[in-house]
Amino acid sequence: MNPTITAFKESPDKGRGMARDMRVRWALEEVGQPYDVRLVSFAEMKAPAHMALHPFGQIPTYEEDDLALFESGAIVLRIAEIHGGLLPADEHARARAIAWMFAALNSVEPRFVEIEIAKLLERDKPWFDARLPEVLARARKPLQQLSARLGEADWLDGDFSAGDLMMVGVLFRAKSSGLLEAHPNLMTYLARGEARPAFQRAFAAQLAVWAAASGE
Amino acid sequence: MNPTITAFKESPDKGRGMARDMRVRWALEEVGQPYDVRLVSFAEMKAPAHMALHPFGQIPTYEEDDLALFESGAIVLRIAEIHGGLLPADEHARARAIAWMFAALNSVEPRFVEIEIAKLLERDKPWFDARLPEVLARARKPLQQLSARLGEADWLDGDFSAGDLMMVGVLFRAKSSGLLEAHPNLMTYLARGEARPAFQRAFAAQLAVWAAASGE
Repeated sequence: MNPTITAFKESPDKGRGMARDMRVRWALEEVGQPYDVRLVSFAEMKAPAHMALHPFGQIPTYEEDDLALFESGAIVLRIAEIHGGLLPADEHARARAIAWMFAALNSVEPRFVEIEIAKLLERDKPWFDARLPEVLARARKPLQQLSARLGEADWLDGDFSAGDLMMVGVLFRAKSSGLLEAHPNLMTYLARGEARPAFQRAFAAQLAVWAAASGE
Repeated sequence: MNPTITAFKESPDKGRGMARDMRVRWALEEVGQPYDVRLVSFAEMKAPAHMALHPFGQIPTYEEDDLALFESGAIVLRIAEIHGGLLPADEHARARAIAWMFAALNSVEPRFVEIEIAKLLERDKPWFDARLPEVLARARKPLQQLSARLGEADWLDGDFSAGDLMMVGVLFRAKSSGLLEAHPNLMTYLARGEARPAFQRAFAAQLAVWAAASGE
């Protein structure tokens, strides 16, 4: 039986692939695992049936037989552990790839969520214009550090791994900040991830959901 | 040979245990693994030797033979994987415990980091007083959801796991927000974690660093 994931019935990003189901779809595509999708409305996300799957009322969730998971990081790690191709066989390299997963989610993504919060929730506040440059400045720092570490390498640590999948997923979400362009090697790294056939299939699948929902 | 972790030479929290080395120390204490600590100043954290270990110039790092890791989540997961006691043997329960690790770091902690950023970096800004209540409101939501999920259980999913270790670690850091008191079950959960002998040993060890550095 295929695993089932949840995704937005009407994604706030209008199919731009910034929602976190994108990373899970991408991981499933990388390992060649077909999957089913259950779309949830904002009301359904906060209803008891979904809250039982995801205590914080978000997407994505992942159901595989009698295992139910939430958190895109945990789901991608699960997919990587039961299929080949997303984590190195060498035990130490595997631990380092997982460190990059945590880094993407904890050291990079929160700074861009802060930008989104400012733009979405505080745009009409009197402090918006004065504060935004400070929020942007805080997000520039991890990008500079990531760029310095990546250098001219194709991927963060050897071959493509779940760590790259998560970092590219976060940079993809961060594109709209306009901050990536300062780092050509990060732009190339992002493009390298986006060019993977599995990324393309995942992107098309989530875009199709939006197209159907919006009638576009 | 013992693993070596890094911690602040002079912790900004003055030994209150809010820095992220606390979680790694706690995990090492839970599994009974002795460890060495290398203290780093703020200048040393940004110097090339440390940046080679931690691309974002933070603590903690973890070195075990020729494996070097960063990100407290990845380090605790590594410790849990090579020792018994922090992850269930059942494969599905193990995946769920790891989901709680990611949840602590991604769905709960960032809202409290936002509070810290506001209080530390924006206290003198003209918008501080008007904006703080909104930042606090955003942090209340995951606490309410976590409280609802935990209910009257001792731990988040069966026995104590690395998921609880990380969540308690995050709630411990969140204490100063004053938002936990609204949820007696979260206070009890936090107290249950703090009462563990391994937590106590970890807390004492990091406090001793501060006491030595400050001459207190």
